[in-house]
Amino acid sequence: MSATAAMLVIGDEILSGKTKDKNVGVLADALTLIGIDLIEVRIVSDDEPAIIDALNALRPRATYVFTSGGIGPTHDDITADAVAKAFGVSIDVDPRARAVLSDWYDKTGREMNAARLRMTRIPQSADLIDNPVSAAPGFKIGNVHVMAGVPAVFQAMLNAVLPTLEGGVPFEQKVLPFNCGEADLAEGLNAIVAAFPTVSIGSYPKLIDGRFSVEIVLRSRDARALDEANEAAQKLRTQLDAA
Amino acid sequence: MSATAAMLVIGDEILSGKTKDKNVGVLADALTLIGIDLIEVRIVSDDEPAIIDALNALRPRATYVFTSGGIGPTHDDITADAVAKAFGVSIDVDPRARAVLSDWYDKTGREMNAARLRMTRIPQSADLIDNPVSAAPGFKIGNVHVMAGVPAVFQAMLNAVLPTLEGGVPFEQKVLPFNCGEADLAEGLNAIVAAFPTVSIGSYPKLIDGRFSVEIVLRSRDARALDEANEAAQKLRTQLDAA
Repeated sequence: MSATAAMLVIGDEILSGKTKDKNVGVLADALTLIGIDLIEVRIVSDDEPAIIDALNALRPRATYVFTSGGIGPTHDDITADAVAKAFGVSIDVDPRARAVLSDWYDKTGREMNAARLRMTRIPQSADLIDNPVSAAPGFKIGNVHVMAGVPAVFQAMLNAVLPTLEGGVPFEQKVLPFNCGEADLAEGLNAIVAAFPTVSIGSYPKLIDGRFSVEIVLRSRDARALDEANEAAQKLRTQLDAA
Repeated sequence: MSATAAMLVIGDEILSGKTKDKNVGVLADALTLIGIDLIEVRIVSDDEPAIIDALNALRPRATYVFTSGGIGPTHDDITADAVAKAFGVSIDVDPRARAVLSDWYDKTGREMNAARLRMTRIPQSADLIDNPVSAAPGFKIGNVHVMAGVPAVFQAMLNAVLPTLEGGVPFEQKVLPFNCGEADLAEGLNAIVAAFPTVSIGSYPKLIDGRFSVEIVLRSRDARALDEANEAAQKLRTQLDAA
Protein backbone atom coordinates (compact mmCIF):
# COMPACT_ATOMS: atom_id res chain seq x y z
CA MET A 1 0.00 0.00 0.00
CA SER A 2 1.46 3.27 -1.10
CA ALA A 3 1.49 6.44 0.97
CA THR A 4 -1.46 8.77 0.38
CA ALA A 5 -2.09 12.47 0.87
CA ALA A 6 -4.99 14.87 1.15
CA MET A 7 -4.99 18.65 0.82
CA LEU A 8 -7.08 21.33 2.47
CA VAL A 9 -7.03 24.76 0.81
CA ILE A 10 -8.32 27.47 3.14
CA GLY A 11 -9.45 30.84 1.86
CA ASP A 12 -12.46 32.93 0.90
CA GLU A 13 -10.35 34.45 -1.88
CA ILE A 14 -10.21 31.11 -3.73
CA LEU A 15 -13.95 30.47 -3.38
CA SER A 16 -14.84 33.99 -4.55
CA GLY A 17 -12.59 33.67 -7.59
CA LYS A 18 -10.49 36.66 -6.55
CA THR A 19 -7.42 34.44 -6.34
CA LYS A 20 -6.88 31.41 -8.56
CA ASP A 21 -5.32 28.54 -6.63
CA LYS A 22 -1.91 27.38 -7.77
CA ASN A 23 -0.91 25.26 -4.79
CA VAL A 24 -3.02 22.19 -5.63
CA GLY A 25 -1.11 21.65 -8.86
CA VAL A 26 2.26 22.29 -7.20
CA LEU A 27 1.56 19.77 -4.44
CA ALA A 28 0.09 17.22 -6.87
CA ASP A 29 3.17 17.36 -9.11
CA ALA A 30 5.58 17.07 -6.17
CA LEU A 31 3.77 14.11 -4.59
CA THR A 32 3.41 12.24 -7.88
CA LEU A 33 7.18 12.46 -8.39
CA ILE A 34 7.86 10.73 -5.06
CA GLY A 35 5.13 8.13 -5.39
CA ILE A 36 2.57 9.52 -2.95
CA ASP A 37 -1.05 9.44 -4.17
CA LEU A 38 -3.06 12.64 -3.61
CA ILE A 39 -6.51 11.19 -2.96
CA GLU A 40 -8.65 14.25 -2.21
CA VAL A 41 -8.56 18.04 -2.07
CA ARG A 42 -11.05 20.26 -0.30
CA ILE A 43 -11.32 24.03 -0.53
CA VAL A 44 -13.13 25.71 2.36
CA SER A 45 -13.67 29.29 3.49
CA ASP A 46 -12.06 31.17 6.39
CA ASP A 47 -14.56 29.64 8.78
CA GLU A 48 -13.45 27.76 11.87
CA PRO A 49 -16.07 24.98 11.90
CA ALA A 50 -15.56 24.39 8.16
CA ILE A 51 -11.79 24.07 8.62
CA ILE A 52 -12.12 21.77 11.64
CA ASP A 53 -14.70 19.52 9.96
CA ALA A 54 -12.68 19.18 6.77
CA LEU A 55 -9.43 18.54 8.61
CA ASN A 56 -10.95 15.90 10.85
CA ALA A 57 -12.53 14.22 7.83
CA LEU A 58 -9.27 14.13 5.89
CA ARG A 59 -6.60 13.35 8.47
CA PRO A 60 -7.66 9.78 9.34
CA ARG A 61 -7.93 8.92 5.65
CA ALA A 62 -4.50 9.88 4.32
CA THR A 63 -0.92 9.24 5.35
CA TYR A 64 -0.20 12.95 5.04
CA VAL A 65 -2.40 16.05 5.02
CA PHE A 66 -1.29 19.43 3.71
CA THR A 67 -3.09 22.71 4.27
CA SER A 68 -2.50 26.00 2.48
CA GLY A 69 -3.64 29.44 3.56
CA GLY A 70 -4.75 31.34 6.62
CA ILE A 71 -1.53 31.52 8.64
CA GLY A 72 -0.71 35.21 8.21
CA PRO A 73 -1.05 38.03 10.76
CA THR A 74 -4.54 39.38 10.03
CA HIS A 75 -7.97 38.73 11.53
CA ASP A 76 -8.94 36.34 8.72
CA ASP A 77 -5.94 34.09 9.37
CA ILE A 78 -7.52 31.49 11.61
CA THR A 79 -5.95 28.26 10.41
CA ALA A 80 -3.55 27.71 13.34
CA ASP A 81 -6.32 28.13 15.91
CA ALA A 82 -8.65 25.87 13.95
CA VAL A 83 -5.97 23.17 13.66
CA ALA A 84 -5.32 23.35 17.41
CA LYS A 85 -9.05 22.86 18.04
CA ALA A 86 -9.22 19.98 15.55
CA PHE A 87 -6.44 18.24 17.49
CA GLY A 88 -7.83 19.30 20.90
CA VAL A 89 -4.58 20.95 21.95
CA SER A 90 -3.80 24.43 23.27
CA ILE A 91 -2.19 27.14 21.16
CA ASP A 92 0.05 29.99 22.25
CA VAL A 93 3.05 32.04 21.22
CA ASP A 94 5.80 29.51 20.52
CA PRO A 95 9.28 30.48 21.77
CA ARG A 96 10.98 28.85 18.76
CA ALA A 97 8.76 30.67 16.28
CA ARG A 98 9.16 33.91 18.22
CA ALA A 99 12.95 33.56 18.11
CA VAL A 100 12.89 32.96 14.34
CA LEU A 101 10.70 36.00 13.74
CA SER A 102 12.53 38.30 16.17
CA ASP A 103 15.79 37.45 14.47
CA TRP A 104 14.26 38.09 11.04
CA TYR A 105 12.82 41.46 12.07
CA ASP A 106 16.15 42.46 13.63
CA LYS A 107 17.89 41.65 10.37
CA THR A 108 15.33 43.42 8.21
CA GLY A 109 15.05 46.48 10.47
CA ARG A 110 11.45 46.01 11.57
CA GLU A 111 9.83 45.66 14.96
CA MET A 112 7.84 42.83 16.48
CA ASN A 113 4.22 43.92 16.98
CA ALA A 114 0.98 42.26 18.00
CA ALA A 115 0.16 41.22 14.43
CA ARG A 116 3.60 39.70 13.84
CA LEU A 117 3.42 37.95 17.19
CA ARG A 118 0.17 36.37 16.01
CA MET A 119 2.18 34.46 13.42
CA THR A 120 4.14 32.77 16.22
CA ARG A 121 1.01 31.13 17.64
CA ILE A 122 1.65 27.41 17.16
CA PRO A 123 -0.40 24.51 18.53
CA GLN A 124 1.16 22.59 21.39
CA SER A 125 3.47 19.73 20.38
CA ALA A 126 3.76 20.90 16.75
CA ASP A 127 7.08 21.02 14.91
CA LEU A 128 7.93 24.13 12.91
CA ILE A 129 8.25 24.17 9.12
CA ASP A 130 10.94 26.54 7.81
CA ASN A 131 9.94 29.55 5.75
CA PRO A 132 13.05 30.87 4.02
CA VAL A 133 10.98 33.41 2.07
CA SER A 134 9.40 35.47 4.84
CA ALA A 135 10.39 33.70 8.09
CA ALA A 136 6.92 33.16 9.66
CA PRO A 137 6.93 29.37 9.99
CA GLY A 138 4.41 26.72 9.12
CA PHE A 139 4.04 23.74 11.38
CA LYS A 140 3.43 20.02 11.48
CA ILE A 141 1.15 18.38 14.00
CA GLY A 142 0.31 14.69 13.77
CA ASN A 143 0.19 13.96 10.05
CA VAL A 144 -0.93 17.50 9.15
CA HIS A 145 1.42 20.00 7.53
CA VAL A 146 0.15 23.57 7.85
CA MET A 147 1.60 25.83 5.19
CA ALA A 148 1.14 29.29 3.72
CA GLY A 149 -1.21 30.25 0.89
CA VAL A 150 1.11 32.65 -0.94
CA PRO A 151 2.47 30.38 -3.68
CA ALA A 152 6.15 31.31 -3.26
CA VAL A 153 5.95 30.60 0.46
CA PHE A 154 3.89 27.42 -0.02
CA GLN A 155 6.51 26.16 -2.45
CA ALA A 156 9.38 27.00 -0.08
CA MET A 157 7.68 25.24 2.83
CA LEU A 158 6.90 22.25 0.63
CA ASN A 159 10.57 22.05 -0.34
CA ALA A 160 11.40 21.90 3.37
CA VAL A 161 8.81 19.17 4.00
CA LEU A 162 9.34 16.88 1.01
CA PRO A 163 12.56 15.24 2.27
CA THR A 164 10.75 14.26 5.49
CA LEU A 165 8.02 12.28 3.69
CA GLU A 166 8.22 8.57 3.10
CA GLY A 167 7.23 8.12 -0.49
CA GLY A 168 5.88 5.02 -2.04
CA VAL A 169 7.09 3.44 -5.24
CA PRO A 170 6.79 6.17 -7.84
CA PHE A 171 4.55 5.47 -10.77
CA GLU A 172 6.21 5.06 -14.10
CA GLN A 173 4.25 6.89 -16.75
CA LYS A 174 3.84 6.77 -20.53
CA VAL A 175 1.95 9.43 -22.43
CA LEU A 176 0.57 8.71 -25.91
CA PRO A 177 -1.09 11.46 -27.93
CA PHE A 178 -3.88 10.18 -30.18
CA ASN A 179 -4.96 12.21 -33.16
CA CYS A 180 -8.67 11.39 -32.85
CA GLY A 181 -11.61 11.86 -30.51
CA GLU A 182 -12.15 9.80 -27.36
CA ALA A 183 -15.13 8.02 -28.88
CA ASP A 184 -12.96 6.71 -31.73
CA LEU A 185 -10.48 5.00 -29.46
CA ALA A 186 -12.70 3.97 -26.55
CA GLU A 187 -13.48 0.46 -27.77
CA GLY A 188 -9.84 -0.43 -28.41
CA LEU A 189 -8.79 1.21 -25.18
CA ASN A 190 -11.35 -0.74 -23.16
CA ALA A 191 -9.68 -3.97 -24.27
CA ILE A 192 -6.30 -2.67 -23.04
CA VAL A 193 -7.82 -1.55 -19.73
CA ALA A 194 -9.25 -5.03 -19.24
CA ALA A 195 -5.99 -6.76 -20.20
CA PHE A 196 -3.74 -4.77 -17.83
CA PRO A 197 -5.36 -4.50 -14.41
CA THR A 198 -2.15 -3.21 -12.74
CA VAL A 199 -1.89 -0.29 -15.17
CA SER A 200 -3.94 2.83 -14.48
CA ILE A 201 -5.08 4.19 -17.82
CA GLY A 202 -6.44 7.70 -18.19
CA SER A 203 -7.99 9.27 -21.26
CA TYR A 204 -7.74 13.06 -21.42
CA PRO A 205 -9.48 14.88 -24.25
CA LYS A 206 -8.18 18.20 -25.44
CA LEU A 207 -10.04 20.73 -27.50
CA ILE A 208 -7.67 22.88 -29.53
CA ASP A 209 -8.88 25.12 -32.35
CA GLY A 210 -12.22 23.34 -32.34
CA ARG A 211 -10.63 19.92 -32.81
CA PHE A 212 -10.54 17.14 -30.22
CA SER A 213 -7.48 15.05 -29.65
CA VAL A 214 -6.68 12.72 -26.75
CA GLU A 215 -3.77 12.00 -24.51
CA ILE A 216 -3.72 8.48 -23.16
CA VAL A 217 -1.70 8.27 -19.96
CA LEU A 218 -0.56 4.87 -18.73
CA ARG A 219 0.71 4.72 -15.15
CA SER A 220 1.91 1.75 -13.16
CA ARG A 221 4.27 0.67 -10.44
CA ASP A 222 4.78 -2.54 -12.49
CA ALA A 223 7.34 -1.67 -15.19
CA ARG A 224 6.78 -4.78 -17.27
CA ALA A 225 3.00 -4.47 -17.39
CA LEU A 226 3.44 -0.80 -18.26
CA ASP A 227 5.67 -1.63 -21.22
CA GLU A 228 3.24 -4.24 -22.50
CA ALA A 229 0.24 -1.93 -22.13
CA ASN A 230 2.19 0.81 -23.86
CA GLU A 231 2.94 -1.48 -26.78
CA ALA A 232 -0.72 -2.41 -27.05
CA ALA A 233 -1.71 1.26 -27.02
CA GLN A 234 0.83 2.11 -29.72
CA LYS A 235 -0.57 -0.71 -31.82
CA LEU A 236 -4.08 0.67 -31.34
CA ARG A 237 -2.89 4.09 -32.42
CA THR A 238 -1.31 2.70 -35.57
CA GLN A 239 -4.58 0.94 -36.41
CA LEU A 240 -6.61 4.10 -35.86
CA ASP A 241 -4.23 6.24 -37.90
CA ALA A 242 -4.56 3.77 -40.78
CA ALA A 243 -8.37 3.68 -40.58
CA MET B 1 -30.06 34.16 3.17
CA SER B 2 -28.24 34.17 -0.08
CA ALA B 3 -28.03 31.24 -2.47
CA THR B 4 -24.99 29.00 -2.01
CA ALA B 5 -23.09 26.58 -4.22
CA ALA B 6 -20.63 23.72 -3.90
CA MET B 7 -18.42 22.19 -6.56
CA LEU B 8 -17.15 18.67 -7.09
CA VAL B 9 -14.21 18.27 -9.44
CA ILE B 10 -13.79 14.67 -10.59
CA GLY B 11 -10.57 13.39 -12.10
CA ASP B 12 -7.35 11.51 -11.39
CA GLU B 13 -5.60 13.88 -13.79
CA ILE B 14 -6.13 16.83 -11.42
CA LEU B 15 -4.96 14.90 -8.36
CA SER B 16 -1.85 13.59 -10.15
CA GLY B 17 -0.93 17.10 -11.32
CA LYS B 18 -1.09 16.07 -14.97
CA THR B 19 -3.84 18.59 -15.58
CA LYS B 20 -4.15 21.87 -13.68
CA ASP B 21 -7.76 22.66 -12.88
CA LYS B 22 -9.19 25.82 -14.39
CA ASN B 23 -12.88 25.23 -13.78
CA VAL B 24 -12.93 26.15 -10.06
CA GLY B 25 -11.84 29.71 -10.84
CA VAL B 26 -14.26 30.01 -13.76
CA LEU B 27 -17.22 28.87 -11.65
CA ALA B 28 -16.14 31.00 -8.65
CA ASP B 29 -15.96 34.14 -10.79
CA ALA B 30 -19.31 33.48 -12.46
CA LEU B 31 -21.14 32.79 -9.19
CA THR B 32 -19.65 35.81 -7.41
CA LEU B 33 -20.94 38.04 -10.20
CA ILE B 34 -24.51 36.88 -9.65
CA GLY B 35 -24.37 36.88 -5.85
CA ILE B 36 -24.14 33.14 -5.18
CA ASP B 37 -21.61 32.12 -2.51
CA LEU B 38 -19.38 29.17 -3.40
CA ILE B 39 -18.96 27.56 0.02
CA GLU B 40 -16.86 24.47 -0.69
CA VAL B 41 -15.00 22.63 -3.43
CA ARG B 42 -13.90 19.02 -3.36
CA ILE B 43 -11.61 17.28 -5.82
CA VAL B 44 -11.89 13.49 -5.90
CA SER B 45 -10.54 10.73 -8.12
CA ASP B 46 -12.33 8.65 -10.77
CA ASP B 47 -13.64 6.36 -8.05
CA GLU B 48 -17.34 5.64 -7.71
CA PRO B 49 -17.61 5.52 -3.90
CA ALA B 50 -15.52 8.71 -3.60
CA ILE B 51 -17.81 10.54 -6.06
CA ILE B 52 -20.99 9.31 -4.39
CA ASP B 53 -19.79 10.18 -0.88
CA ALA B 54 -18.67 13.66 -1.86
CA LEU B 55 -21.84 14.37 -3.81
CA ASN B 56 -24.10 13.22 -1.01
CA ALA B 57 -22.11 15.30 1.48
CA LEU B 58 -22.34 18.46 -0.63
CA ARG B 59 -25.83 18.40 -2.12
CA PRO B 60 -27.83 18.89 1.09
CA ARG B 61 -25.56 21.78 2.11
CA ALA B 62 -25.73 24.08 -0.89
CA THR B 63 -28.49 25.54 -3.02
CA TYR B 64 -26.65 24.40 -6.15
CA VAL B 65 -23.97 21.80 -6.78
CA PHE B 66 -21.78 21.74 -9.89
CA THR B 67 -19.58 18.86 -10.98
CA SER B 68 -16.86 18.90 -13.61
CA GLY B 69 -15.24 15.93 -15.29
CA GLY B 70 -15.86 12.28 -16.03
CA ILE B 71 -18.70 12.47 -18.56
CA GLY B 72 -16.81 11.48 -21.71
CA PRO B 73 -16.98 8.17 -23.62
CA THR B 74 -14.08 6.20 -22.09
CA HIS B 75 -13.86 3.64 -19.29
CA ASP B 76 -12.70 6.24 -16.73
CA ASP B 77 -15.77 8.42 -17.32
CA ILE B 78 -17.98 7.20 -14.50
CA THR B 79 -19.61 10.39 -13.24
CA ALA B 80 -23.08 9.85 -14.73
CA ASP B 81 -23.37 6.37 -13.23
CA ALA B 82 -22.07 7.58 -9.85
CA VAL B 83 -24.58 10.46 -9.82
CA ALA B 84 -27.43 8.07 -10.64
CA LYS B 85 -26.37 5.88 -7.71
CA ALA B 86 -26.06 8.90 -5.39
CA PHE B 87 -29.67 9.80 -6.25
CA GLY B 88 -30.84 6.18 -6.21
CA VAL B 89 -32.25 6.37 -9.74
CA SER B 90 -31.69 4.24 -12.81
CA ILE B 91 -29.55 5.29 -15.74
CA ASP B 92 -29.86 4.40 -19.40
CA VAL B 93 -29.45 5.71 -22.91
CA ASP B 94 -31.59 8.86 -23.01
CA PRO B 95 -33.61 9.35 -26.22
CA ARG B 96 -33.16 13.15 -26.09
CA ALA B 97 -29.39 12.87 -25.68
CA ARG B 98 -29.23 10.20 -28.36
CA ALA B 99 -31.12 12.44 -30.78
CA VAL B 100 -28.76 15.36 -30.09
CA LEU B 101 -25.69 13.21 -30.66
CA SER B 102 -27.04 11.38 -33.71
CA ASP B 103 -27.83 14.70 -35.30
CA TRP B 104 -24.35 16.03 -34.47
CA TYR B 105 -22.62 12.95 -35.91
CA ASP B 106 -24.75 13.13 -39.04
CA LYS B 107 -23.72 16.75 -39.51
CA THR B 108 -20.05 16.09 -38.83
CA GLY B 109 -19.87 12.91 -40.90
CA ARG B 110 -19.21 10.45 -38.11
CA GLU B 111 -21.01 7.34 -36.94
CA MET B 112 -22.63 6.55 -33.62
CA ASN B 113 -20.68 3.78 -31.89
CA ALA B 114 -20.75 2.13 -28.45
CA ALA B 115 -18.41 4.71 -26.93
CA ARG B 116 -20.44 7.65 -28.26
CA LEU B 117 -23.64 6.00 -27.10
CA ARG B 118 -22.12 5.85 -23.61
CA MET B 119 -22.26 9.66 -23.53
CA THR B 120 -26.05 9.50 -23.89
CA ARG B 121 -26.46 7.61 -20.61
CA ILE B 122 -28.40 10.03 -18.41
CA PRO B 123 -29.93 9.34 -14.99
CA GLN B 124 -33.69 9.03 -14.91
CA SER B 125 -35.60 12.33 -14.45
CA ALA B 126 -32.56 14.48 -15.25
CA ASP B 127 -32.76 17.49 -17.57
CA LEU B 128 -30.11 17.91 -20.26
CA ILE B 129 -27.57 20.73 -20.28
CA ASP B 130 -26.66 21.97 -23.77
CA ASN B 131 -23.15 21.50 -25.07
CA PRO B 132 -22.71 23.76 -28.11
CA VAL B 133 -19.01 22.84 -28.33
CA SER B 134 -19.11 19.08 -28.82
CA ALA B 135 -22.79 18.12 -28.46
CA ALA B 136 -22.57 15.44 -25.73
CA PRO B 137 -24.81 16.98 -23.08
CA GLY B 138 -24.39 17.52 -19.37
CA PHE B 139 -27.41 17.11 -17.14
CA LYS B 140 -29.17 18.47 -14.10
CA ILE B 141 -30.72 16.24 -11.47
CA GLY B 142 -32.11 17.69 -8.26
CA ASN B 143 -29.82 20.60 -7.43
CA VAL B 144 -26.80 18.97 -9.09
CA HIS B 145 -25.44 20.19 -12.44
CA VAL B 146 -23.18 17.62 -14.08
CA MET B 147 -20.79 19.23 -16.54
CA ALA B 148 -17.70 18.41 -18.58
CA GLY B 149 -14.10 18.74 -17.42
CA VAL B 150 -12.64 20.12 -20.64
CA PRO B 151 -12.55 23.85 -19.83
CA ALA B 152 -14.10 25.07 -23.10
CA VAL B 153 -17.01 22.65 -22.68
CA PHE B 154 -17.38 23.38 -18.96
CA GLN B 155 -17.57 27.09 -19.76
CA ALA B 156 -20.14 26.54 -22.51
CA MET B 157 -22.33 24.39 -20.25
CA LEU B 158 -21.99 26.94 -17.46
CA ASN B 159 -23.15 29.66 -19.84
CA ALA B 160 -26.23 27.55 -20.54
CA VAL B 161 -26.89 27.00 -16.83
CA LEU B 162 -26.26 30.47 -15.40
CA PRO B 163 -29.54 32.05 -16.58
CA THR B 164 -31.46 29.28 -14.80
CA LEU B 165 -29.94 30.03 -11.37
CA GLU B 166 -31.60 32.29 -8.86
CA GLY B 167 -28.83 34.52 -7.61
CA GLY B 168 -28.75 36.36 -4.36
CA VAL B 169 -27.90 40.01 -3.90
CA PRO B 170 -24.47 40.42 -5.48
CA PHE B 171 -21.72 41.64 -3.22
CA GLU B 172 -20.38 45.09 -3.88
CA GLN B 173 -16.64 45.08 -3.63
CA LYS B 174 -13.85 47.59 -3.02
CA VAL B 175 -10.20 46.68 -3.45
CA LEU B 176 -7.48 48.74 -1.78
CA PRO B 177 -3.82 47.99 -2.44
CA PHE B 178 -1.57 48.70 0.56
CA ASN B 179 2.10 49.27 0.06
CA CYS B 180 3.23 47.47 3.22
CA GLY B 181 3.21 44.03 4.81
CA GLU B 182 0.16 42.48 6.45
CA ALA B 183 1.70 42.79 9.90
CA ASP B 184 1.98 46.58 9.48
CA LEU B 185 -1.70 47.08 8.81
CA ALA B 186 -3.23 44.31 10.94
CA GLU B 187 -3.86 46.39 14.06
CA GLY B 188 -5.59 49.20 12.19
CA LEU B 189 -7.51 46.71 10.07
CA ASN B 190 -8.76 44.82 13.12
CA ALA B 191 -10.47 48.01 14.31
CA ILE B 192 -12.23 48.33 10.95
CA VAL B 193 -13.26 44.67 10.99
CA ALA B 194 -14.77 45.17 14.46
CA ALA B 195 -16.55 48.39 13.46
CA PHE B 196 -18.22 46.99 10.32
CA PRO B 197 -19.72 43.58 11.05
CA THR B 198 -21.76 43.53 7.80
CA VAL B 199 -18.63 44.01 5.68
CA SER B 200 -16.51 40.98 4.85
CA ILE B 201 -12.88 42.10 4.90
CA GLY B 202 -10.12 40.01 3.39
CA SER B 203 -6.40 40.63 3.53
CA TYR B 204 -4.40 39.11 0.68
CA PRO B 205 -0.63 39.32 0.78
CA LYS B 206 1.36 39.31 -2.42
CA LEU B 207 5.03 38.61 -2.79
CA ILE B 208 6.45 40.30 -5.86
CA ASP B 209 10.21 40.59 -6.45
CA GLY B 210 10.87 39.64 -2.83
CA ARG B 211 8.61 42.40 -1.49
CA PHE B 212 5.29 41.90 0.27
CA SER B 213 2.32 44.12 -0.42
CA VAL B 214 -1.32 43.59 0.51
CA GLU B 215 -4.67 43.90 -1.15
CA ILE B 216 -7.49 44.61 1.23
CA VAL B 217 -10.83 43.53 -0.22
CA LEU B 218 -14.03 44.85 1.31
CA ARG B 219 -17.22 43.07 0.30
CA SER B 220 -20.76 43.66 1.45
CA ARG B 221 -24.37 43.52 0.40
CA ASP B 222 -24.87 46.72 2.44
CA ALA B 223 -23.72 49.60 0.20
CA ARG B 224 -23.62 52.21 2.93
CA ALA B 225 -21.57 50.13 5.37
CA LEU B 226 -19.23 49.27 2.50
CA ASP B 227 -18.66 52.95 1.71
CA GLU B 228 -17.97 53.77 5.35
CA ALA B 229 -15.59 50.83 5.80
CA ASN B 230 -13.85 51.81 2.59
CA GLU B 231 -13.35 55.36 3.87
CA ALA B 232 -11.91 54.02 7.12
CA ALA B 233 -9.53 51.76 5.19
CA GLN B 234 -8.40 54.63 2.97
CA LYS B 235 -7.71 56.70 6.09
CA LEU B 236 -5.67 53.84 7.54
CA ARG B 237 -3.68 53.62 4.33
CA THR B 238 -2.92 57.36 4.39
CA GLN B 239 -1.71 57.02 8.01
CA LEU B 240 0.52 54.07 7.13
CA ASP B 241 1.96 55.80 4.06
CA ALA B 242 2.86 58.80 6.24
CA ALA B 243 4.46 56.69 8.98
